[in-house]
Amino acid sequence: MKHLTRLSDFTVEEIMEILERANRYASGETIPQLEGKVVANLFFEPSTRTQYSFMMAEQKLGLKTMDFTAETSSVQKGETLYDTVKTFEAIGVDGVVIRHPQNNYFEELIPNLNIPIFNGGDGSGNHPTQSLLDLLTIYQEYGKFEGLKIAIVGDIAHSRVAHTNIEVMNRLGMEVHLVAPEQFQEEGYAWENLDDVLEEMDIIMLLRVQHERHHGGMQLTKEEYHEQYGLTVEREKRMKEGAIIMHPAPFNRGVEIADDVVECKRSRIFKQMSNGVFIRMAVLVGSLGYVD
Amino acid sequence: MKHLTRLSDFTVEEIMEILERANRYASGETIPQLEGKVVANLFFEPSTRTQYSFMMAEQKLGLKTMDFTAETSSVQKGETLYDTVKTFEAIGVDGVVIRHPQNNYFEELIPNLNIPIFNGGDGSGNHPTQSLLDLLTIYQEYGKFEGLKIAIVGDIAHSRVAHTNIEVMNRLGMEVHLVAPEQFQEEGYAWENLDDVLEEMDIIMLLRVQHERHHGGMQLTKEEYHEQYGLTVEREKRMKEGAIIMHPAPFNRGVEIADDVVECKRSRIFKQMSNGVFIRMAVLVGSLGYVD
Amino acid sequence: MKHLTRLSDFTVEEIMEILERANRYASGETIPQLEGKVVANLFFEPSTRTQYSFMMAEQKLGLKTMDFTAETSSVQKGETLYDTVKTFEAIGVDGVVIRHPQNNYFEELIPNLNIPIFNGGDGSGNHPTQSLLDLLTIYQEYGKFEGLKIAIVGDIAHSRVAHTNIEVMNRLGMEVHLVAPEQFQEEGYAWENLDDVLEEMDIIMLLRVQHERHHGGMQLTKEEYHEQYGLTVEREKRMKEGAIIMHPAPFNRGVEIADDVVECKRSRIFKQMSNGVFIRMAVLVGSLGYVD
Repeated sequence: MKHLTRLSDFTVEEIMEILERANRYASGETIPQLEGKVVANLFFEPSTRTQYSFMMAEQKLGLKTMDFTAETSSVQKGETLYDTVKTFEAIGVDGVVIRHPQNNYFEELIPNLNIPIFNGGDGSGNHPTQSLLDLLTIYQEYGKFEGLKIAIVGDIAHSRVAHTNIEVMNRLGMEVHLVAPEQFQEEGYAWENLDDVLEEMDIIMLLRVQHERHHGGMQLTKEEYHEQYGLTVEREKRMKEGAIIMHPAPFNRGVEIADDVVECKRSRIFKQMSNGVFIRMAVLVGSLGYVD
Repeated sequence: MKHLTRLSDFTVEEIMEILERANRYASGETIPQLEGKVVANLFFEPSTRTQYSFMMAEQKLGLKTMDFTAETSSVQKGETLYDTVKTFEAIGVDGVVIRHPQNNYFEELIPNLNIPIFNGGDGSGNHPTQSLLDLLTIYQEYGKFEGLKIAIVGDIAHSRVAHTNIEVMNRLGMEVHLVAPEQFQEEGYAWENLDDVLEEMDIIMLLRVQHERHHGGMQLTKEEYHEQYGLTVEREKRMKEGAIIMHPAPFNRGVEIADDVVECKRSRIFKQMSNGVFIRMAVLVGSLGYVD
Repeated sequence: MKHLTRLSDFTVEEIMEILERANRYASGETIPQLEGKVVANLFFEPSTRTQYSFMMAEQKLGLKTMDFTAETSSVQKGETLYDTVKTFEAIGVDGVVIRHPQNNYFEELIPNLNIPIFNGGDGSGNHPTQSLLDLLTIYQEYGKFEGLKIAIVGDIAHSRVAHTNIEVMNRLGMEVHLVAPEQFQEEGYAWENLDDVLEEMDIIMLLRVQHERHHGGMQLTKEEYHEQYGLTVEREKRMKEGAIIMHPAPFNRGVEIADDVVECKRSRIFKQMSNGVFIRMAVLVGSLGYVD
């Protein structure tokens, strides 16, 4: 049994194996049918892409699914995550997809659990399938990682995507540049200016301004943010030939990205979503299937 | 690819084709299996009949489904309808059923969307599958539309069902009479008295008093409404021989219809619900299947 | 058609037939496939175990399912339970699983309903599948019921599980002892002291303190409850050799049961959950299948 909780636990070889498998599904390879297996989707935070693309991946693999809603469950009676997950194990599910606001929620589960966890995002920590779909999108574009230059732009401090990506992209030999307003910077990283790096980058990866997490409010107005850190129409034009734009979505049109740039030729934003299904299929097959 | 957004876009021939196909399913014709296709159900307003009969139709057709809940999605993070629907397209669904409170929500979607929309109701505008199931129920009863007399009674101003029905029934050659309290009348129509037309009608179609939309309150008490506009036990007895009663449901027992009349011999209210499944099957097959 | 609403309507022979069938599924007997049938799950109260183990049972039997959520349905427009259930019948479901806060909610449904009801719990009244899974767990342990001694401990007044169990266990020849704080006692029963009976019992069945139902607050603190009525580590040690611990869950660790006792060797708590799926399969097959 193989959990997917943190991408940092996976070697480069294991990561490449998942990417290659996902890429074969994207290229039309016959999808294995994991008949008779059941996966429960436990989402304790709102999500569209992660939740529904896991569901789509499960459907495509012929898995049966149970979608857990905290609002109508015994979580309302105070039941803990541990006891909830053990309940799903007891009633016979073969794996659980979990998104939960607590960082590293899975650490207390793993010692006593006999079914794999597929981490759909924990707090501000990990989001391994999002990173994998980002990597697949880059790999389909460039056929390699070594030497590629990426700028990650935005609310890095609160982003589980950024944290996971920085670590794995460095391991894969990419050159990672970080751009963020002071409010969203963290210690331990070097910070650069968007306009200084823009024209050198192969990939501009924008992050969402997470208005719902900034209870104290953002120090910049939306207009100021867009002007200083947003991918404006003007900046898109200055990007290197063939360079691409990525965003994990949902995006705030007119804040981190100009409305007209969302669906421009460089944008791989909707392609990332399509790749998310192939990645989740590859991950599910890797743990539940007969492949590995 | 064929959207079903407004019944007014369909010719009488196209409408009859859907009705005939639905009627064959109702009569026991083998149901085609649309294997491998996936439909997403996006309901942004509460619904029982429309939502669950679409789901039942999808099940009967062997479709896989994803039921979207706005409450647990990125709509909570401000994601727009357009971006939500494009996401479902990107992750690979073959069609979307949408109910949304905004009139003509589909107009902004259609130009950029490559999968069909099945409109489950928009604001106070259209509700094409409801009209189609009403028509099927009438067609099963009388085998024709030409010359049939119907009275639509109730909150016509707020009813998408009424608006769609008036337009299509006129085109089909039916004689449509309208009855409503002054508060629920609109300009551009002729208004009649229930007791003046009651005994002449082949069909009495009642509409629900939508208490949740009348924030200012209804000008009549429930008792007054029942007495003046409700299908009372006494009125039911005065109806023409063989005439039938319809209501899109949910109904307010004792307001627009007497408790004892709901399940009386003339009532086709539950038959309408059964027909709703056949209509939705016919519509889904028409767009996603190999029939047309 | 056979409803499962109250276990008191079933003879001992009928109960044993369900238990034997469930036990065969638990032992690996091939599970019948009820293809083409559709069950609707209508939960009007939060639940994890009952809801998801019904869903798992339905999946294992190859049934198609529709999961009804009151929050996004016409119940929001005032639709009654009766009209909601009749709607599901009209759209063609073959059976309904219902959990509802009203005692004996099913009595008004049965006279006019042509599909079976599977009661997932009504108010503080019945919870037949929970009792059946408790019985299956005991039967797997001891191979009989006659003469077995059980203590049911806790909030008996508010527990539908306790009421159903007391009745059926008496009929099966078990010796039922009841222990509860004064606040949770009812007239008509004899009440005992936990420490007086503890060492004689074959089964200690704990009930959950239902904090959400005690709006006036519990008269004991959690610590006092644990000390006087909880299965502490110390009490577990004093239990008879081979005696087992049961709890319908969700459990409050440190209140009715010590944290370390939940997963101890005597505990059958997670086994009860697994058995819940087999029981629900047996019940569904009994009504919808070709077995009986």
